[in-house]
Amino acid sequence: MSRIESGGPRHFHEELTRLKGLLLEMSGEAEALVRLSVDSLLEQDLAKAQEVIDGDDRVDELELEIDRVAHEILALQQPMAGDLRFITMTMKISNDLERVGDHSVNIARAVQRLADLPPFGRAPEVAEMASLAIAMLSDALDSFVRGDAQAAGEIGPRDDRVDHLYNSMFRVLLTHMMEDPRRIGPAMTTLLISKNLERIADLATNVAEDVIFMVEGRVIKHGTGRSSGPAGG
Amino acid sequence: MSRIESGGPRHFHEELTRLKGLLLEMSGEAEALVRLSVDSLLEQDLAKAQEVIDGDDRVDELELEIDRVAHEILALQQPMAGDLRFITMTMKISNDLERVGDHSVNIARAVQRLADLPPFGRAPEVAEMASLAIAMLSDALDSFVRGDAQAAGEIGPRDDRVDHLYNSMFRVLLTHMMEDPRRIGPAMTTLLISKNLERIADLATNVAEDVIFMVEGRVIKHGTGRSSGPAGG
Repeated sequence: MSRIESGGPRHFHEELTRLKGLLLEMSGEAEALVRLSVDSLLEQDLAKAQEVIDGDDRVDELELEIDRVAHEILALQQPMAGDLRFITMTMKISNDLERVGDHSVNIARAVQRLADLPPFGRAPEVAEMASLAIAMLSDALDSFVRGDAQAAGEIGPRDDRVDHLYNSMFRVLLTHMMEDPRRIGPAMTTLLISKNLERIADLATNVAEDVIFMVEGRVIKHGTGRSSGPAGG
Repeated sequence: MSRIESGGPRHFHEELTRLKGLLLEMSGEAEALVRLSVDSLLEQDLAKAQEVIDGDDRVDELELEIDRVAHEILALQQPMAGDLRFITMTMKISNDLERVGDHSVNIARAVQRLADLPPFGRAPEVAEMASLAIAMLSDALDSFVRGDAQAAGEIGPRDDRVDHLYNSMFRVLLTHMMEDPRRIGPAMTTLLISKNLERIADLATNVAEDVIFMVEGRVIKHGTGRSSGPAGG
Protein backbone atom coordinates (compact mmCIF):
# COMPACT_ATOMS: atom_id res chain seq x y z
CA MET A 1 0.00 0.00 0.00
CA SER A 2 1.41 3.33 -1.00
CA ARG A 3 1.08 6.45 1.11
CA ILE A 4 1.25 8.44 -2.09
CA GLU A 5 -2.07 8.21 -3.84
CA SER A 6 -3.33 10.26 -6.70
CA GLY A 7 -5.64 12.53 -4.83
CA GLY A 8 -7.51 13.85 -7.83
CA PRO A 9 -7.30 17.41 -9.05
CA ARG A 10 -7.93 19.17 -5.78
CA HIS A 11 -7.10 22.80 -5.53
CA PHE A 12 -3.70 23.47 -3.96
CA HIS A 13 -4.96 25.73 -1.19
CA GLU A 14 -7.71 23.29 -0.37
CA GLU A 15 -5.03 20.62 0.14
CA LEU A 16 -3.01 22.91 2.39
CA THR A 17 -6.12 23.70 4.42
CA ARG A 18 -6.77 19.99 4.77
CA LEU A 19 -3.20 19.43 5.98
CA LYS A 20 -3.50 22.28 8.48
CA GLY A 21 -6.83 20.88 9.70
CA LEU A 22 -5.22 17.49 10.35
CA LEU A 23 -2.38 19.07 12.32
CA LEU A 24 -4.87 21.09 14.37
CA GLU A 25 -6.79 17.92 15.16
CA MET A 26 -3.55 16.17 16.13
CA SER A 27 -2.48 19.15 18.30
CA GLY A 28 -5.79 19.05 20.12
CA GLU A 29 -5.53 15.31 20.71
CA ALA A 30 -1.89 15.44 21.86
CA GLU A 31 -2.48 18.35 24.21
CA ALA A 32 -5.55 16.62 25.65
CA LEU A 33 -3.49 13.47 26.31
CA VAL A 34 -0.87 15.44 28.25
CA ARG A 35 -3.56 17.17 30.35
CA LEU A 36 -5.32 13.87 31.00
CA SER A 37 -2.09 12.12 31.99
CA VAL A 38 -1.29 14.91 34.46
CA ASP A 39 -4.84 14.80 35.85
CA SER A 40 -4.53 11.03 36.27
CA LEU A 41 -1.33 11.64 38.26
CA LEU A 42 -2.58 14.46 40.47
CA GLU A 43 -5.97 12.85 41.11
CA GLN A 44 -4.55 9.29 41.22
CA ASP A 45 -7.27 8.40 38.74
CA LEU A 46 -6.52 5.07 37.05
CA ALA A 47 -9.49 5.36 34.67
CA LYS A 48 -7.99 8.54 33.23
CA ALA A 49 -4.61 6.81 32.92
CA GLN A 50 -6.26 4.09 30.86
CA GLU A 51 -8.00 6.72 28.73
CA VAL A 52 -4.58 8.19 27.86
CA ILE A 53 -3.22 4.78 26.84
CA ASP A 54 -6.26 4.11 24.64
CA GLY A 55 -6.30 7.62 23.17
CA ASP A 56 -2.75 7.51 21.83
CA ASP A 57 -3.78 5.34 18.85
CA ARG A 58 -5.64 8.27 17.30
CA VAL A 59 -2.52 10.46 17.61
CA ASP A 60 -0.46 7.78 15.87
CA GLU A 61 -3.04 7.50 13.08
CA LEU A 62 -3.02 11.25 12.55
CA GLU A 63 0.76 11.29 12.15
CA LEU A 64 0.51 8.74 9.33
CA GLU A 65 -2.37 10.64 7.71
CA ILE A 66 -0.42 13.91 7.83
CA ASP A 67 2.64 12.27 6.27
CA ARG A 68 0.44 10.81 3.54
CA VAL A 69 -1.27 14.11 2.68
CA ALA A 70 2.03 16.02 2.81
CA HIS A 71 3.67 13.58 0.38
CA GLU A 72 0.62 13.80 -1.87
CA ILE A 73 0.84 17.60 -2.04
CA LEU A 74 4.59 17.54 -2.60
CA ALA A 75 4.20 14.99 -5.40
CA LEU A 76 1.27 16.60 -7.20
CA GLN A 77 1.98 20.30 -6.72
CA GLN A 78 5.17 22.30 -6.70
CA PRO A 79 4.93 24.40 -3.56
CA MET A 80 7.41 27.25 -3.24
CA ALA A 81 9.25 28.83 -0.30
CA GLY A 82 6.65 29.56 2.39
CA ASP A 83 4.20 26.81 1.43
CA LEU A 84 7.01 24.31 1.14
CA ARG A 85 8.24 25.18 4.62
CA PHE A 86 4.66 24.89 5.91
CA ILE A 87 4.41 21.34 4.52
CA THR A 88 7.78 20.08 5.75
CA MET A 89 7.33 21.70 9.18
CA THR A 90 3.87 20.14 9.47
CA MET A 91 5.52 16.75 9.03
CA LYS A 92 8.16 17.60 11.64
CA ILE A 93 5.64 18.97 14.13
CA SER A 94 3.41 15.92 13.73
CA ASN A 95 6.44 13.74 14.47
CA ASP A 96 7.02 15.76 17.66
CA LEU A 97 3.34 15.50 18.63
CA GLU A 98 3.45 11.75 18.15
CA ARG A 99 6.26 11.69 20.71
CA VAL A 100 4.25 13.96 23.03
CA GLY A 101 1.57 11.26 22.86
CA ASP A 102 4.14 8.58 23.74
CA HIS A 103 5.37 10.59 26.74
CA SER A 104 1.77 10.97 27.95
CA VAL A 105 1.37 7.20 27.73
CA ASN A 106 4.61 6.75 29.69
CA ILE A 107 3.21 9.04 32.40
CA ALA A 108 -0.10 7.15 32.45
CA ARG A 109 1.69 3.80 32.78
CA ALA A 110 3.79 5.22 35.61
CA VAL A 111 0.59 6.36 37.37
CA GLN A 112 -0.68 2.79 37.12
CA ARG A 113 2.55 1.47 38.68
CA LEU A 114 2.48 4.09 41.45
CA ALA A 115 -0.87 2.67 42.57
CA ASP A 116 0.88 -0.59 43.51
CA LEU A 117 3.77 1.08 45.34
CA PRO A 118 3.99 2.38 48.91
CA PRO A 119 2.42 5.84 49.22
CA PHE A 120 4.83 8.66 48.56
CA GLY A 121 4.47 12.28 49.60
CA ARG A 122 3.61 14.82 46.96
CA ALA A 123 6.43 16.43 45.02
CA PRO A 124 5.13 19.95 44.38
CA GLU A 125 7.74 20.38 41.62
CA VAL A 126 5.91 17.80 39.50
CA ALA A 127 2.71 19.85 39.46
CA GLU A 128 4.66 22.98 38.55
CA MET A 129 6.59 21.18 35.81
CA ALA A 130 3.34 19.77 34.43
CA SER A 131 1.65 23.15 34.33
CA LEU A 132 4.69 24.77 32.65
CA ALA A 133 5.06 21.99 30.07
CA ILE A 134 1.36 22.09 29.18
CA ALA A 135 1.40 25.89 28.84
CA MET A 136 4.53 25.75 26.61
CA LEU A 137 2.96 23.11 24.36
CA SER A 138 -0.32 24.96 24.17
CA ASP A 139 1.39 28.28 23.34
CA ALA A 140 3.64 26.62 20.74
CA LEU A 141 0.63 25.13 18.97
CA ASP A 142 -1.16 28.46 19.22
CA SER A 143 1.82 30.20 17.58
CA PHE A 144 1.57 27.65 14.76
CA VAL A 145 -2.14 28.35 14.23
CA ARG A 146 -1.54 32.11 14.14
CA GLY A 147 1.77 31.86 12.24
CA ASP A 148 3.21 34.05 15.00
CA ALA A 149 7.01 33.77 15.03
CA GLN A 150 7.38 36.34 17.80
CA ALA A 151 5.17 34.37 20.18
CA ALA A 152 7.04 31.20 19.18
CA GLY A 153 10.33 32.89 20.05
CA GLU A 154 9.18 33.43 23.63
CA ILE A 155 8.66 29.72 24.28
CA GLY A 156 12.22 28.31 24.19
CA PRO A 157 13.55 30.43 27.09
CA ARG A 158 10.78 29.08 29.36
CA ASP A 159 12.36 25.63 29.04
CA ASP A 160 15.14 26.71 31.42
CA ARG A 161 12.71 26.81 34.35
CA VAL A 162 11.49 23.29 33.52
CA ASP A 163 15.07 21.99 33.33
CA HIS A 164 15.85 23.72 36.64
CA LEU A 165 12.85 22.06 38.32
CA TYR A 166 13.83 18.67 36.92
CA ASN A 167 17.41 18.99 38.18
CA SER A 168 16.22 20.09 41.59
CA MET A 169 13.74 17.17 41.77
CA PHE A 170 16.48 14.77 40.78
CA ARG A 171 18.57 15.81 43.80
CA VAL A 172 15.61 15.85 46.22
CA LEU A 173 14.43 12.40 45.15
CA LEU A 174 17.93 10.96 45.38
CA THR A 175 18.10 12.18 48.98
CA HIS A 176 14.69 10.61 49.76
CA MET A 177 15.90 7.32 48.33
CA MET A 178 19.08 7.35 50.39
CA GLU A 179 17.18 8.12 53.58
CA ASP A 180 14.59 5.41 53.19
CA PRO A 181 14.98 2.49 50.78
CA ARG A 182 11.21 1.88 50.81
CA ARG A 183 10.91 5.14 48.94
CA ILE A 184 13.14 3.99 46.08
CA GLY A 185 10.33 2.48 44.00
CA PRO A 186 7.91 5.42 44.16
CA ALA A 187 10.71 8.01 43.96
CA MET A 188 12.11 6.40 40.80
CA THR A 189 8.66 6.34 39.26
CA THR A 190 8.10 10.00 40.16
CA LEU A 191 11.46 10.85 38.66
CA LEU A 192 10.54 9.13 35.42
CA ILE A 193 7.25 11.02 35.29
CA SER A 194 9.10 14.29 35.66
CA LYS A 195 11.60 13.22 32.98
CA ASN A 196 8.66 12.73 30.60
CA LEU A 197 7.32 16.18 31.47
CA GLU A 198 10.75 17.65 30.84
CA ARG A 199 10.80 15.96 27.41
CA ILE A 200 7.33 17.32 26.59
CA ALA A 201 8.64 20.83 27.31
CA ASP A 202 11.63 20.11 25.01
CA LEU A 203 9.25 19.01 22.26
CA ALA A 204 7.18 22.18 22.73
CA THR A 205 10.43 24.09 22.21
CA ASN A 206 11.09 22.08 19.02
CA VAL A 207 7.60 22.93 17.75
CA ALA A 208 8.18 26.63 18.45
CA GLU A 209 11.51 26.49 16.57
CA ASP A 210 9.76 24.86 13.61
CA VAL A 211 7.10 27.61 13.64
CA ILE A 212 9.85 30.25 13.44
CA PHE A 213 11.47 28.47 10.50
CA MET A 214 8.08 28.07 8.83
CA VAL A 215 7.21 31.77 9.17
CA GLU A 216 10.59 33.40 8.72
CA GLY A 217 12.77 30.79 7.01
CA ARG A 218 15.26 31.34 9.81
CA VAL A 219 16.86 28.58 11.89
CA ILE A 220 17.27 29.04 15.63
CA LYS A 221 17.91 25.42 16.56
CA HIS A 222 21.07 24.26 18.27
CA GLY A 223 21.84 27.79 19.43
CA THR A 224 19.29 27.65 22.21
CA GLY A 225 20.90 24.52 23.60
CA ARG A 226 18.89 21.34 23.96
CA SER A 227 20.15 21.05 27.49
CA SER A 228 20.55 17.84 29.39
CA GLY A 229 20.23 17.78 33.14
CA PRO A 230 22.27 15.60 35.47
CA ALA A 231 19.99 12.76 34.45
CA GLY A 232 19.80 13.72 30.81
CA GLY A 233 18.03 10.86 29.12
CA MET B 1 19.05 34.05 6.98
CA SER B 2 17.03 31.72 4.83
CA ARG B 3 17.72 28.02 4.62
CA ILE B 4 16.31 28.07 1.12
CA GLU B 5 18.84 29.61 -1.18
CA SER B 6 18.89 29.57 -4.92
CA GLY B 7 21.42 26.86 -5.50
CA GLY B 8 22.03 27.55 -9.15
CA PRO B 9 21.03 25.23 -11.97
CA ARG B 10 22.56 22.06 -10.66
CA HIS B 11 21.50 18.81 -12.18
CA PHE B 12 18.77 17.05 -10.19
CA HIS B 13 20.66 13.79 -9.70
CA GLU B 14 23.77 15.68 -8.69
CA GLU B 15 21.71 17.37 -5.95
CA LEU B 16 20.33 14.01 -4.76
CA THR B 17 23.85 12.58 -4.67
CA ARG B 18 24.96 15.58 -2.62
CA LEU B 19 22.09 15.01 -0.18
CA LYS B 20 22.92 11.33 0.13
CA GLY B 21 26.58 12.18 0.70
CA LEU B 22 25.64 14.50 3.56
CA LEU B 23 23.49 11.83 5.19
CA LEU B 24 26.30 9.29 4.85
CA GLU B 25 28.70 11.71 6.51
CA MET B 26 26.17 12.32 9.29
CA SER B 27 25.59 8.55 9.73
CA GLY B 28 29.31 7.99 10.07
CA GLU B 29 29.66 10.77 12.63
CA ALA B 30 26.64 9.68 14.68
CA GLU B 31 27.68 6.03 14.73
CA ALA B 32 31.23 7.03 15.71
CA LEU B 33 29.84 9.09 18.63
CA VAL B 34 27.85 6.13 19.95
CA ARG B 35 30.89 3.84 19.74
CA LEU B 36 33.11 6.43 21.42
CA SER B 37 30.60 7.03 24.22
CA VAL B 38 30.39 3.29 24.90
CA ASP B 39 34.20 3.00 24.82
CA SER B 40 34.44 5.89 27.29
CA LEU B 41 32.06 4.00 29.57
CA LEU B 42 33.67 0.56 29.35
CA GLU B 43 37.24 1.91 29.55
CA GLN B 44 36.32 4.69 32.04
CA ASP B 45 38.11 7.04 29.67
CA LEU B 46 37.18 10.66 30.40
CA ALA B 47 39.12 12.01 27.41
CA LYS B 48 36.90 9.95 25.11
CA ALA B 49 33.81 11.23 26.94
CA GLN B 50 34.95 14.79 26.24
CA GLU B 51 35.58 13.89 22.59
CA VAL B 52 31.94 12.79 22.29
CA ILE B 53 30.67 16.05 23.79
CA ASP B 54 32.84 18.11 21.42
CA GLY B 55 32.02 15.97 18.39
CA ASP B 56 28.25 16.42 18.61
CA ASP B 57 28.42 19.94 17.13
CA ARG B 58 29.35 18.50 13.74
CA VAL B 59 26.31 16.19 13.84
CA ASP B 60 24.06 19.16 14.66
CA GLU B 61 25.55 21.16 11.77
CA LEU B 62 24.98 18.31 9.35
CA GLU B 63 21.29 18.10 10.30
CA LEU B 64 20.83 21.78 9.41
CA GLU B 65 22.79 21.36 6.17
CA ILE B 66 20.67 18.34 5.16
CA ASP B 67 17.45 20.26 5.87
CA ARG B 68 18.74 23.17 3.81
CA VAL B 69 19.70 21.05 0.80
CA ALA B 70 16.47 19.05 0.98
CA HIS B 71 14.35 22.23 0.96
CA GLU B 72 16.43 23.56 -1.92
CA ILE B 73 15.78 20.45 -4.02
CA LEU B 74 12.07 20.41 -3.15
CA ALA B 75 11.74 24.10 -4.07
CA LEU B 76 13.71 24.01 -7.31
CA GLN B 77 12.83 20.61 -8.69
CA GLN B 78 9.67 18.59 -8.67
CA PRO B 79 10.74 15.16 -7.49
CA MET B 80 8.24 12.35 -7.93
CA ALA B 81 7.36 9.26 -5.88
CA GLY B 82 10.61 7.45 -5.07
CA ASP B 83 12.87 10.52 -5.17
CA LEU B 84 10.39 12.48 -3.09
CA ARG B 85 10.33 9.76 -0.45
CA PHE B 86 14.13 9.67 -0.52
CA ILE B 87 14.27 13.41 0.23
CA THR B 88 11.66 13.47 3.01
CA MET B 89 13.07 10.31 4.63
CA THR B 90 16.57 11.80 4.52
CA MET B 91 15.23 14.72 6.57
CA LYS B 92 13.56 12.33 9.01
CA ILE B 93 16.61 10.10 9.35
CA SER B 94 18.88 13.10 9.93
CA ASN B 95 16.52 14.22 12.69
CA ASP B 96 16.85 10.75 14.27
CA LEU B 97 20.64 10.82 13.91
CA GLU B 98 20.76 14.20 15.60
CA ARG B 99 19.01 12.60 18.56
CA VAL B 100 21.44 9.66 18.45
CA GLY B 101 24.17 12.29 18.87
CA ASP B 102 22.34 13.79 21.85
CA HIS B 103 22.00 10.38 23.50
CA SER B 104 25.74 9.77 23.01
CA VAL B 105 26.43 13.09 24.73
CA ASN B 106 24.11 12.09 27.60
CA ILE B 107 26.09 8.85 27.98
CA ALA B 108 29.41 10.75 27.91
CA ARG B 109 28.19 13.19 30.58
CA ALA B 110 27.03 10.27 32.72
CA VAL B 111 30.49 8.69 32.37
CA GLN B 112 32.00 11.94 33.67
CA ARG B 113 29.63 11.89 36.69
CA LEU B 114 30.36 8.21 37.37
CA ALA B 115 34.03 9.12 37.86
CA ASP B 116 33.06 11.17 40.95
CA LEU B 117 30.80 8.50 42.44
CA PRO B 118 31.66 5.47 44.58
CA PRO B 119 32.87 2.57 42.41
CA PHE B 120 30.09 0.31 41.22
CA GLY B 121 30.42 -3.26 39.97
CA ARG B 122 30.07 -3.86 36.27
CA ALA B 123 26.62 -4.44 34.86
CA PRO B 124 27.23 -6.90 32.02
CA GLU B 125 23.80 -6.05 30.54
CA VAL B 126 25.06 -2.56 29.67
CA ALA B 127 27.83 -3.93 27.46
CA GLU B 128 25.38 -6.27 25.73
CA MET B 129 22.83 -3.47 25.24
CA ALA B 130 25.54 -1.23 23.82
CA SER B 131 26.74 -3.83 21.36
CA LEU B 132 23.17 -4.60 20.23
CA ALA B 133 22.23 -0.92 19.85
CA ILE B 134 25.38 -0.17 17.86
CA ALA B 135 24.83 -3.16 15.57
CA MET B 136 21.18 -2.16 14.98
CA LEU B 137 22.15 1.41 14.13
CA SER B 138 24.98 0.30 11.87
CA ASP B 139 22.74 -2.20 10.04
CA ALA B 140 19.92 0.36 9.68
CA LEU B 141 22.30 2.87 8.09
CA ASP B 142 23.72 0.12 5.89
CA SER B 143 20.19 -0.76 4.71
CA PHE B 144 19.72 2.92 3.81
CA VAL B 145 22.94 3.00 1.76
CA ARG B 146 21.98 -0.16 -0.11
CA GLY B 147 18.25 0.72 -0.33
CA ASP B 148 17.62 -2.74 1.10
CA ALA B 149 14.10 -2.92 2.57
CA GLN B 150 14.44 -6.59 3.45
CA ALA B 151 17.52 -5.99 5.59
CA ALA B 152 15.75 -2.98 7.16
CA GLY B 153 12.79 -5.21 8.04
CA GLU B 154 15.03 -7.47 10.12
CA ILE B 155 16.12 -4.67 12.45
CA GLY B 156 12.92 -3.80 14.34
CA PRO B 157 12.43 -7.26 15.89
CA ARG B 158 15.93 -7.06 17.42
CA ASP B 159 14.70 -4.18 19.57
CA ASP B 160 12.80 -6.65 21.78
CA ARG B 161 16.05 -8.06 23.16
CA VAL B 162 17.27 -4.53 24.01
CA ASP B 163 13.99 -3.72 25.77
CA HIS B 164 14.21 -6.99 27.66
CA LEU B 165 17.75 -6.20 28.83
CA TYR B 166 16.69 -2.72 29.90
CA ASN B 167 13.75 -4.02 31.92
CA SER B 168 15.89 -6.66 33.56
CA MET B 169 18.58 -4.06 34.43
CA PHE B 170 15.93 -1.80 35.89
CA ARG B 171 14.91 -4.51 38.37
CA VAL B 172 18.47 -5.53 39.20
CA LEU B 173 19.59 -1.95 39.83
CA LEU B 174 16.54 -1.24 41.98
CA THR B 175 17.49 -4.20 44.15
CA HIS B 176 21.07 -2.96 44.44
CA MET B 177 19.80 0.45 45.52
CA MET B 178 17.52 -1.01 48.16
CA GLU B 179 20.30 -3.19 49.58
CA ASP B 180 22.89 -0.44 49.85
CA PRO B 181 21.99 3.26 49.69
CA ARG B 182 25.59 4.14 48.75
CA ARG B 183 24.89 2.43 45.45
CA ILE B 184 21.95 4.72 44.61
CA GLY B 185 24.05 7.39 42.88
CA PRO B 186 26.07 5.10 40.59
CA ALA B 187 23.10 2.76 40.01
CA MET B 188 20.88 5.65 38.91
CA THR B 189 23.60 6.88 36.57
CA THR B 190 24.06 3.39 35.13
CA LEU B 191 20.30 3.13 34.65
CA LEU B 192 20.25 6.42 32.76
CA ILE B 193 23.08 5.24 30.53
CA SER B 194 21.14 2.10 29.69
CA LYS B 195 18.01 4.20 29.02
CA ASN B 196 20.00 6.18 26.46
CA LEU B 197 21.20 2.95 24.82
CA GLU B 198 17.62 1.71 24.71
CA ARG B 199 16.59 4.96 22.99
CA ILE B 200 19.41 4.62 20.44
CA ALA B 201 18.07 1.16 19.56
CA ASP B 202 14.57 2.69 19.18
CA LEU B 203 15.98 5.33 16.83
CA ALA B 204 17.75 2.64 14.80
CA THR B 205 14.33 0.99 14.47
CA ASN B 206 12.84 4.31 13.30
CA VAL B 207 15.59 4.63 10.68
CA ALA B 208 14.90 1.10 9.45
CA GLU B 209 11.16 1.89 9.18
CA ASP B 210 11.97 5.02 7.18
CA VAL B 211 14.19 2.99 4.83
CA ILE B 212 11.28 0.60 4.18
CA PHE B 213 8.96 3.51 3.41
CA MET B 214 11.62 5.08 1.19
CA VAL B 215 12.15 1.89 -0.82
CA GLU B 216 8.65 0.44 -0.91
CA GLY B 217 6.31 3.32 -0.10
CA ARG B 218 4.89 1.09 2.62
CA VAL B 219 4.37 2.12 6.25
CA ILE B 220 5.22 -0.33 9.03
CA LYS B 221 5.29 2.15 11.92
CA HIS B 222 3.02 1.87 14.93
CA GLY B 223 2.30 -1.77 14.18
CA THR B 224 5.63 -2.91 15.51
CA GLY B 225 4.97 -1.21 18.84
CA ARG B 226 7.30 1.45 20.12
CA SER B 227 7.33 -0.32 23.40
CA SER B 228 7.96 1.35 26.73
CA GLY B 229 9.54 -0.60 29.53
CA PRO B 230 8.65 -0.22 33.21
CA ALA B 231 10.77 2.91 33.16
CA GLY B 232 9.61 4.07 29.76
CA GLY B 233 10.95 7.55 29.44
